[in-house]
Amino acid sequence: MTRWDRDHHLHPWAGVEGVGKDEYMRVNTGEGIYLWDSAGKRYIDGPGGMWCVQIGYGREEMAKAIAEQTMQMPYASPWSFTSEPAAVLARKLAEMAPGDLNTVHFTTGGSTAVDTALRAVQFMNNRLGRPEKKIILSREKAYHGSTYLASTMTGKERFKTQFDKADDLVHFLPDINPYGRPEDMSLEDWCDAKLADMEAAIAEVGADKIAAFIAEPILCSGGIIVPPPGYHKRTLDLCHKHDILYISDEVVTGFGRMGHWFASEPVFDIVPDIITCAKGLTSGYIPLGACILSDRVVDQMRGNAENDTFYNGYTYSGHPVGCAAALKNIEIMEREDILGHVQRITPYFQGRLRAIGEKFDIVGDARGMGLLGCLECRPELSDETYAAHLQFGNKLDAVCEEMGLLLRPFGNMAVFSPPLIMTEAQIDEMFDIMEAGLTRLSAEYGA
Amino acid sequence: MTRWDRDHHLHPWAGVEGVGKDEYMRVNTGEGIYLWDSAGKRYIDGPGGMWCVQIGYGREEMAKAIAEQTMQMPYASPWSFTSEPAAVLARKLAEMAPGDLNTVHFTTGGSTAVDTALRAVQFMNNRLGRPEKKIILSREKAYHGSTYLASTMTGKERFKTQFDKADDLVHFLPDINPYGRPEDMSLEDWCDAKLADMEAAIAEVGADKIAAFIAEPILCSGGIIVPPPGYHKRTLDLCHKHDILYISDEVVTGFGRMGHWFASEPVFDIVPDIITCAKGLTSGYIPLGACILSDRVVDQMRGNAENDTFYNGYTYSGHPVGCAAALKNIEIMEREDILGHVQRITPYFQGRLRAIGEKFDIVGDARGMGLLGCLECRPELSDETYAAHLQFGNKLDAVCEEMGLLLRPFGNMAVFSPPLIMTEAQIDEMFDIMEAGLTRLSAEYGA
Repeated sequence: MTRWDRDHHLHPWAGVEGVGKDEYMRVNTGEGIYLWDSAGKRYIDGPGGMWCVQIGYGREEMAKAIAEQTMQMPYASPWSFTSEPAAVLARKLAEMAPGDLNTVHFTTGGSTAVDTALRAVQFMNNRLGRPEKKIILSREKAYHGSTYLASTMTGKERFKTQFDKADDLVHFLPDINPYGRPEDMSLEDWCDAKLADMEAAIAEVGADKIAAFIAEPILCSGGIIVPPPGYHKRTLDLCHKHDILYISDEVVTGFGRMGHWFASEPVFDIVPDIITCAKGLTSGYIPLGACILSDRVVDQMRGNAENDTFYNGYTYSGHPVGCAAALKNIEIMEREDILGHVQRITPYFQGRLRAIGEKFDIVGDARGMGLLGCLECRPELSDETYAAHLQFGNKLDAVCEEMGLLLRPFGNMAVFSPPLIMTEAQIDEMFDIMEAGLTRLSAEYGA
Repeated sequence: MTRWDRDHHLHPWAGVEGVGKDEYMRVNTGEGIYLWDSAGKRYIDGPGGMWCVQIGYGREEMAKAIAEQTMQMPYASPWSFTSEPAAVLARKLAEMAPGDLNTVHFTTGGSTAVDTALRAVQFMNNRLGRPEKKIILSREKAYHGSTYLASTMTGKERFKTQFDKADDLVHFLPDINPYGRPEDMSLEDWCDAKLADMEAAIAEVGADKIAAFIAEPILCSGGIIVPPPGYHKRTLDLCHKHDILYISDEVVTGFGRMGHWFASEPVFDIVPDIITCAKGLTSGYIPLGACILSDRVVDQMRGNAENDTFYNGYTYSGHPVGCAAALKNIEIMEREDILGHVQRITPYFQGRLRAIGEKFDIVGDARGMGLLGCLECRPELSDETYAAHLQFGNKLDAVCEEMGLLLRPFGNMAVFSPPLIMTEAQIDEMFDIMEAGLTRLSAEYGA
C-alpha cells in the first residue's frame, strides 16, 4: 500500500524527484499521545499531528459526534443556509476571541483563513477608497500557509526557491529571533531594535501604502521563535498609530497550545484586528479554519451600500460536520480543563526542555513556550561541516524515531508540539528519549 | 439560533451590510434528495448541496466509515506520513483519471486544488528556466474558486468589483455561451469564432508568455454554459500546438455529474494535462480536493535535481477521514451504478428541461447537460425593467421554495444540479414545481 502512495501521491513539501521512489511511513492507529505504524511499532507523537491533535487520538466521543452530524445533515451550502453547528460555533468563537472580534468567516484550514484575512483587508481598503494601501508587513521566518497569497507572506528563505510570490504585496521585517542577537545585547535592547526595524519599514514603505501587519504570536514553523517581552504590544501600538491593521495568525497558538483559547490577549496583551485559526479548532479531526474579524474591520468593510458583497468563501465554509467536530472538541477541552492542564504542566515541560540546553553542548538553543519546543544545533560545533549542521533535525528525528519518539525536523532544528493531554510521566518519557538521542548524536558530532 | 448566525457569521458572498441583520434558513436534516428546515418543511435540494451531494443525504454507510476512520486514525501529517485511505485513494484517482494523469496532490477543496494547479504550473516553468511563461488563459463567466489566485482566474464580471486580483497573471477569452451568438450563426461557426478568439489571444499575448489554459468543461457557476461541439478538443490541440498546458477544472463535472468519473475524456474527448476535483469526490460529506498531474507535467517539474521541493500543501492534505469518506462514496457509486443511472436518466431530465424552454415565453434559454440545468430569463421580456430581469433567479427560487423546491439563483438565471440518485418520479416532482413557479412568474412578468 505504501507503494501506491509512493507511485501516485505527491506529498506536501516533497521533492518531485522522489515521486515513484520515496516511501512514507504509514501510520495506522492512534490512541492518546501515541501513534502506531503499519508494522505495529508505537511512537509518541511529538509534533501532535501537525501542531493540531490537542485532545489526542482515539476519542470515541468525537467519532460519535461526527457520525451523528453526518447522519443528520452532512452538508449545507453556506451560500444559502446555515446549520446548527455553524451557528453555534460562530457565536462560540466570537465569545472566545478577544475584544470586539465578533464576526466569523469559516474556511477549510489555516491557509484559506489567512488568504481570507488578507483578501478582507484588500476589500476593506478598496471600500474605503484607498486602493494603494495594500502592502502587508510580514517577517523573516514567518509561515502563513500555502495558497499563492498566504505563501507570499511566508518569510522562510527556502520558500522563495522555485515558486512565484506576489512580491509587490509584501514587505519583510528582519529576523526577530532573540537567539540571533549580538552576545552582549539584552532582550530589552533587542526588542527596541525590532521596533526600530518596524518603524524604519513604515518610514521606507509609507504608512499610506501599508495595509496590515501579519504575525504569528510565536513563529512556529520558523523554529518556535518567541519574541522578546513587550514586542507584541509595542508592535500593535505602532501599527495602530499608523492606521495599520494587526492580523494575529493563531493557527498554531490557538486552542490551548499556550493554555488559552487564543494567546493574543491573555498571553501577549494584545487585541488584534483579525485572528486566523484552524488546526486545534477541531484537534485536526475534520478540516476547518476560521477568520475572525473585529467590529471595526467589519464596519469599514461596509463602506457605502453599493457592491458590498464579500465575494469570498468556500463550498466547505461552515461545514456542518467540521463545525460539529469543533464543538465537541471544545466541549472536551472544557470538561477536562485542558487549558488549565496546559497551564499546570507547562513549567515542567519547559523545565525539562531548558535542562537539555544546559546539558548538551551540541544544543545551541533549547527554547519554547506553552507546549511548544525547539532544539537548535550549536552552529560553531559544525562550522567545517555546514551540511552536517543542517542535518541535525533529520538526524535527531531518526535516532528518536528508533526509540519510539517522532519529532519534526527543520534543517538545523527539531521542533515538537505534542498533544495537550500529555501527563508529567509522558513528558518524562518524551524528554528521556530526546536526551538519549542527543547523547548518541553528540558522539557523532564529536561534541 | 439563526440569531447567533445572523450576528456572528459572515457567509460566503454575503453583503457586509447584512451582518447582524440577515437571517439564513437553517437546514436541519437531510434524506435522499430532500432537506428539511428547522420548522420541519421539506424541500427537494435542487442545487444538490453546492453541486456536490451526489449520493444524497442520510447515508448510514458514510457515517459508519467516517466514524471508523475517526476512531482508528483521525489525522496523519502528510508531511511525514501516509495513511491507508490516502494511499488507496491516490491510486484510485490515478486509475480514474484519463491518460497519464497519475500523480495526486490532495487539498482541502476546489479552490485550493485550483490554487495548487496554478502554482504547480508556475513551479514547472521556473524549473524549466522560462519564468516569463506565466499567464493563464481563462474565460469570461468562468468560476475557479475563492483564493486570491483562484479568484484571479474567475471571469464573472461581478467578481471584479471590490476585490483585488493578480491581473498580470491572467488573460480572459470572450464569452463562449452559444446562447449569446448572433441569431443567424450556426454552432459550427460559433465554435470557429471561439477558436479564433483563442488564436488571437495567443498571438496578442505570445505563446512564450502563456503557461496554461484553465477551463471548466461546462461553465457551471457562470450559468451552465455548454461549449459548442468540438470546442474542447480543438482548444486542447491549439494549446498543445503552442506548448500551453490544459487544466480541466472538473470540480463540478467530476464524480458522476455527467455520468462518468471525469467528463474530460469520455464526454469531451480530451486528455488534459492537469485535472482539479473536489465536491462530488466525497459527495460533500467531508472537505477534500485534489489536483491530478500528468506524468509529463511531473517530469517537467523535476527539472534539475537541486531545489526540486514542491513547497505546497496543507495540514489537511490527504486527511485520513476525508479520504475514507471519498473511498466509501466511490464504493457506493460503484455498487449502485450511479454513473449508469445518470446516463440512463439524463435524457429524461434534459427532455423535461427543454420542454420548459418551449412552453414558457419568459424563459429565453433552457440549457444543460448531464444532471446540470439552467433557466435563463428572456431579456426582451423585461427590457423596460432590467432590474426585474436580473431578479428572475431570486423570484423563481422564492416561488419554488414555497412549493418545496430549492434552486440556485444567479441574477437572470436559476440553476440546479440535484443529487445523482434522483428517480424519474422525482425528476417529475422537481420540474412540475418549476413549471408551476414559472406559470406564476409569467403572470407577474406579463408574459
